[in-house]
Amino acid sequence: MINKLVAKIQKQNAPVVVGLDPMMKFIPKHIKDAAFEEYGETLEGAAEAIWQFNKAIIDNIYDIVPAVKPQVAMYEQFGIEGMKVFKKTVDYCKEKDMVVIGDVKRGDIGSTSEAYAVAHLGKVQVGSKSISAFDEDFATVNPYLGSDGINPFLKVCKEENKGIFILVKTSNPSSGEFQDRLIDGRPLYELVGEKVAEWGNECMGDDYSYVGAVVGATYPEMGKVLRKIMPKAYILVPGYGAQGGKAEDLVHFFNKDGLGAIVNSSRGIIAAYAKEEYAKFGEKNFAEASRQAAIDMINDINGALK
Amino acid sequence: MINKLVAKIQKQNAPVVVGLDPMMKFIPKHIKDAAFEEYGETLEGAAEAIWQFNKAIIDNIYDIVPAVKPQVAMYEQFGIEGMKVFKKTVDYCKEKDMVVIGDVKRGDIGSTSEAYAVAHLGKVQVGSKSISAFDEDFATVNPYLGSDGINPFLKVCKEENKGIFILVKTSNPSSGEFQDRLIDGRPLYELVGEKVAEWGNECMGDDYSYVGAVVGATYPEMGKVLRKIMPKAYILVPGYGAQGGKAEDLVHFFNKDGLGAIVNSSRGIIAAYAKEEYAKFGEKNFAEASRQAAIDMINDINGALK
Repeated sequence: MINKLVAKIQKQNAPVVVGLDPMMKFIPKHIKDAAFEEYGETLEGAAEAIWQFNKAIIDNIYDIVPAVKPQVAMYEQFGIEGMKVFKKTVDYCKEKDMVVIGDVKRGDIGSTSEAYAVAHLGKVQVGSKSISAFDEDFATVNPYLGSDGINPFLKVCKEENKGIFILVKTSNPSSGEFQDRLIDGRPLYELVGEKVAEWGNECMGDDYSYVGAVVGATYPEMGKVLRKIMPKAYILVPGYGAQGGKAEDLVHFFNKDGLGAIVNSSRGIIAAYAKEEYAKFGEKNFAEASRQAAIDMINDINGALK
Repeated sequence: MINKLVAKIQKQNAPVVVGLDPMMKFIPKHIKDAAFEEYGETLEGAAEAIWQFNKAIIDNIYDIVPAVKPQVAMYEQFGIEGMKVFKKTVDYCKEKDMVVIGDVKRGDIGSTSEAYAVAHLGKVQVGSKSISAFDEDFATVNPYLGSDGINPFLKVCKEENKGIFILVKTSNPSSGEFQDRLIDGRPLYELVGEKVAEWGNECMGDDYSYVGAVVGATYPEMGKVLRKIMPKAYILVPGYGAQGGKAEDLVHFFNKDGLGAIVNSSRGIIAAYAKEEYAKFGEKNFAEASRQAAIDMINDINGALK
């Protein structure tokens, strides 16, 4: 799956992933009105609004953007109905041949971690049958519990040709509270990065490992160090745009081959219509605004990489 | 909610929580056969088997055990059908007046962390309505992302009178890979414990905070230190029984008031029928075996606490 991701990034010349984090406040009024009219102000109504919103955006970006990253929390908060639309979104993106990174940040130990891996990347055994549950291509994983939490994911990735991105240095302001603390003179995130490289060595695609890392665009100097520590890990980079990460900061996350990183933007793309820059599209044409914002993001990053 | 948990523990004289982690291999054959006959070897069939298994155990322990801890991964792997039976289990336990600790180990930042908090402890806004999604009483939370990940949970806990248990020192063998690394001469888990105490200070119930901690029974010496660092935090203690934690190890997790800790057992209770000790019950009477195992566990722990 890492080979497919790399090939799609190269073909579309777009090291970009769009975060499908459909908060209700981002969804245009006409979509919410229609959904609530059909289903009432219910979880079903919210799920229908999210689905129509996602579908329009996917239809408008799938030919230029290689991957999407649905944030499961934004669906989980709507309960069963939310999880149904998460699954529907995953399936639809895969139909459109997009790579789907489930931003689930799961992490547990042993058989529990394996159950999460099965839920999002694998197949569950039911009697004599093997059945997929949510079936994303990649999942994000939290490393706090150590190898006992990661190894079950590696097992499932090997079986199913899937991949993971492990949280190393997150984009948020307080990520340093624990991640930056010095251990033998080096920050914790570097130690986690070393383990990512180690875990990744046994899980190689052609040029990159299917064990990647999450490193925030908001910490470019740390990205530079981590790039060297994990040369074969694809880096998923959140924090571009809304969180303050700039294109020129991103060069450090890439290797000399021009590969090795994929930059995420969520609200900067899906809620582009609400920004002054794209106001000319109007709320009704929100999905066209998203397409334009994606094009601009790709150009911005490719410009900085030259 | 922490007050309710403490009151229930005192009333039932049982500092014990039963982990509802229904792996298919634990479910007796007659239950699986009946479910598969009705629904086939499908996700619905698996969910029905889990539900019948859970319900029988709950019916047999609710009057002696104050709390349950369903492990969401074990449901999530069965997709939407699995999440439906997770919700059904949460609701049924609450009907039986048990405290429900959702073992979800979620953790993200800002609005995403808030969405997880809303999903599991709060209410989501849909138009003019506020609607609950999974609605557990407590949730477990991963601290790797720092305060940005925890604060949204605290906000929802305050609004909804709910609580969280933050992972501090997990019970698994590799938990030390990151958690034990020394920072200024002290292990990372102690720093996390200090933050738990700090976060907890602003979220006090009567005697205990509704910000608790997870510390594995398998590390009693560390438990002793953490008990002092977080005097007002309830400690959720996994690792008793199957993972090797013994009752005499558990005394360090309690305060002098005899409170402050709740010990989890999952397969030791729910799959008791498969152990030699309880074989006399027979597979058909698995739920009675679970009740006896719960009684024995309560006596074992209370004996050690004397």
